[in-house]
Amino acid sequence: MKILLVGAGGVGGAFTAIAARRDFFEAIVIADYDEAKAQHAAGALDERFTAAKIDASSAEAVTALCREHGITHVMNAVDPVFNMPIFDGAFAAGADYLDMAMSLSKPHPEAPYEKVGVMLGDEQFAVAEEWEAAGRLALVGMGVEPGLSDVFARYAADHLFSEIDELGTRDGANLVVTDDDGNEIFAPSFSMWTTIEECLNPPVIWEKERGWFTTPPFSEPEVFDFPEGIGPVECVNVEHEEVLLMPRWVDCKRATFKYGLGDEFITILKVLHTLGLDSTEKVRVKGVEVSPRDVVAAVLPDPATVGPRMKGKTCAGLWVTGKGKDGEKRSTYLYHVVDNETVMADYGHQCVVWQTAINPVVALELIATGVWSGAGVLGPEAFDAVPFLDLLTAYGSPWGQQELAPQG
Amino acid sequence: MKILLVGAGGVGGAFTAIAARRDFFEAIVIADYDEAKAQHAAGALDERFTAAKIDASSAEAVTALCREHGITHVMNAVDPVFNMPIFDGAFAAGADYLDMAMSLSKPHPEAPYEKVGVMLGDEQFAVAEEWEAAGRLALVGMGVEPGLSDVFARYAADHLFSEIDELGTRDGANLVVTDDDGNEIFAPSFSMWTTIEECLNPPVIWEKERGWFTTPPFSEPEVFDFPEGIGPVECVNVEHEEVLLMPRWVDCKRATFKYGLGDEFITILKVLHTLGLDSTEKVRVKGVEVSPRDVVAAVLPDPATVGPRMKGKTCAGLWVTGKGKDGEKRSTYLYHVVDNETVMADYGHQCVVWQTAINPVVALELIATGVWSGAGVLGPEAFDAVPFLDLLTAYGSPWGQQELAPQG
Repeated sequence: MKILLVGAGGVGGAFTAIAARRDFFEAIVIADYDEAKAQHAAGALDERFTAAKIDASSAEAVTALCREHGITHVMNAVDPVFNMPIFDGAFAAGADYLDMAMSLSKPHPEAPYEKVGVMLGDEQFAVAEEWEAAGRLALVGMGVEPGLSDVFARYAADHLFSEIDELGTRDGANLVVTDDDGNEIFAPSFSMWTTIEECLNPPVIWEKERGWFTTPPFSEPEVFDFPEGIGPVECVNVEHEEVLLMPRWVDCKRATFKYGLGDEFITILKVLHTLGLDSTEKVRVKGVEVSPRDVVAAVLPDPATVGPRMKGKTCAGLWVTGKGKDGEKRSTYLYHVVDNETVMADYGHQCVVWQTAINPVVALELIATGVWSGAGVLGPEAFDAVPFLDLLTAYGSPWGQQELAPQG
Repeated sequence: MKILLVGAGGVGGAFTAIAARRDFFEAIVIADYDEAKAQHAAGALDERFTAAKIDASSAEAVTALCREHGITHVMNAVDPVFNMPIFDGAFAAGADYLDMAMSLSKPHPEAPYEKVGVMLGDEQFAVAEEWEAAGRLALVGMGVEPGLSDVFARYAADHLFSEIDELGTRDGANLVVTDDDGNEIFAPSFSMWTTIEECLNPPVIWEKERGWFTTPPFSEPEVFDFPEGIGPVECVNVEHEEVLLMPRWVDCKRATFKYGLGDEFITILKVLHTLGLDSTEKVRVKGVEVSPRDVVAAVLPDPATVGPRMKGKTCAGLWVTGKGKDGEKRSTYLYHVVDNETVMADYGHQCVVWQTAINPVVALELIATGVWSGAGVLGPEAFDAVPFLDLLTAYGSPWGQQELAPQG
């Protein structure tokens, strides 16, 4: 297996740090628009890692780099705005493809908060038959969320439930960032630009009778009690890939995604929207032109640098309700918790990017060893969950299962 | 009386529209850095108004323009950052001076939320003796707040109270701005840049025993019930000139200023501060440099243009508590309410700038007619309040008085 990793940013860096401890691949070419960044990442690792420059907006450039290095698998670790050229470039080169977020959505022009427009992944699923016919695999949404959450959905359907009412992804954390004086500061652990994008896009929900539909941002607030000491966090509906992926392979009545943003973050996002500071359209400010959203991202600490000043745990998981194998009502939360101080000490990467990055490494190892195989555009729930969860545990990062009181 | 008006912005424009209906002056030179703006303003008025270009950051330029036009009174209607050159320039030219906001403060370097540093007006009061010796008058803080609020303080002390516990300026409104579709939008009726400045600076309070001291922003929240249908609004301490002016001339135990920002506006200001978007220091954003606060101001509608889309009333006033002339406990709110639709129809200026602008016109008429006279750096409470309040009413904009239930 020869991997082209596109993107040497936060998640890309954590991906290589985790992969370097495994032996299932022959080579990883780390490619970035900023070649020095790629060289810096490769230089810190063993001789299987080399660096290259890439323009991820060009499918031709992706294809050419794949051919030059005899790439078998393209790992996309850049902003999803570049998904389609990387996806198309891999296909043209005859390589398999993995990403951690799907092609972008566009709101419905007339009823954005009721009806779906272009959905997440639509552009990728549109060419699924071509991938299948060519015998090539595109494993889409293979990070932690989407990714591990989707593996949990498959696991619940196969091993825990006879009938599923809702597959509800629930993400929450108790991360706190402090400044040099030890005072708590506001510093998102993930790209603020992307967080604004996903939180202000119309959230999507799937129901068996209705199909996919949307709601206004921050709908259906709910306090979810996260495990391992994180505790209760206010969660709201957010547009996310799981809702688009799970119903394609797992039988259920409803699929949702709720993000534990917490009161403060929700207030901040609402204020940014009220003022128009979420806008990506440039405005003229004293002789220069800037996008307000870029300014918001620029004034906040870089998420890649907050790791050493951050404490707490992050939790990704899936809340499944329905009937157990015994026909009785069941409510189960399947989850994965990462403690920031632990992974900072062990890997030097902060927990949110580390938790995203470990899952595609596990998936690639399952593909390299032939445990997972397939052709077409497939989500993680299209594969057997057990070997994935076992290998994740073997990597030293176990998952958890918590039984909750069934409702209703 | 020959007046040099520095600044043809929102308040300057309303000032000329109000003054044009009076006959107490011979000439008004409207001066602005943007000469076309000054010419546009003068062109719409009678032959007593002429236009000039001015660099308000240069005391020499102010002096030269005063001498060129034989100016007797300089009316400062620009941002208080330019106060000192205009104030000094007027003095050098032998002219009297009026402004509507005092020289700026600087927080205490070690204990900004406990102790005062440089206070509002300190730079101006520092040269009070020179003005007095020269027989020249600087009437500072002569807008609506500071200004009319200070006139109310003098009126309360002379005519309503035998002993004053607190002089509490309270400002509130029920203004609503709508977009073209009639949906309510967030659009401050006053400069967002200045609003951020005054609301995030440490609020100042005066107490007889302690002198001046500061608190953290948004301290001592209180719901004040404003008259004439405005109703209850959440008010918080804000740094404002009244607290620096009133105790110098009016005997009281405490002086405060609370601004009825309302929940939403307070939340917005807190979020801007949390994110660092209130900062005036430039940040680098994709190859250009901008000040985040300038970006916030740029994305919002221009306050000068919201008048036609705004409905509601604004109220400036002073809540006085203590003992009445009869020795009984007394609690009185002296106020001035302006309805936006009324002044838009009558003057074509929105209520917040119009309410600021009418007061210096009244003051200049009292000075021109010799009713008010003095030398030195004086606040509005240094003069007899009755002729001011009578003339304000004669301008068609009466004030009000409301008795409240005494507390404690």
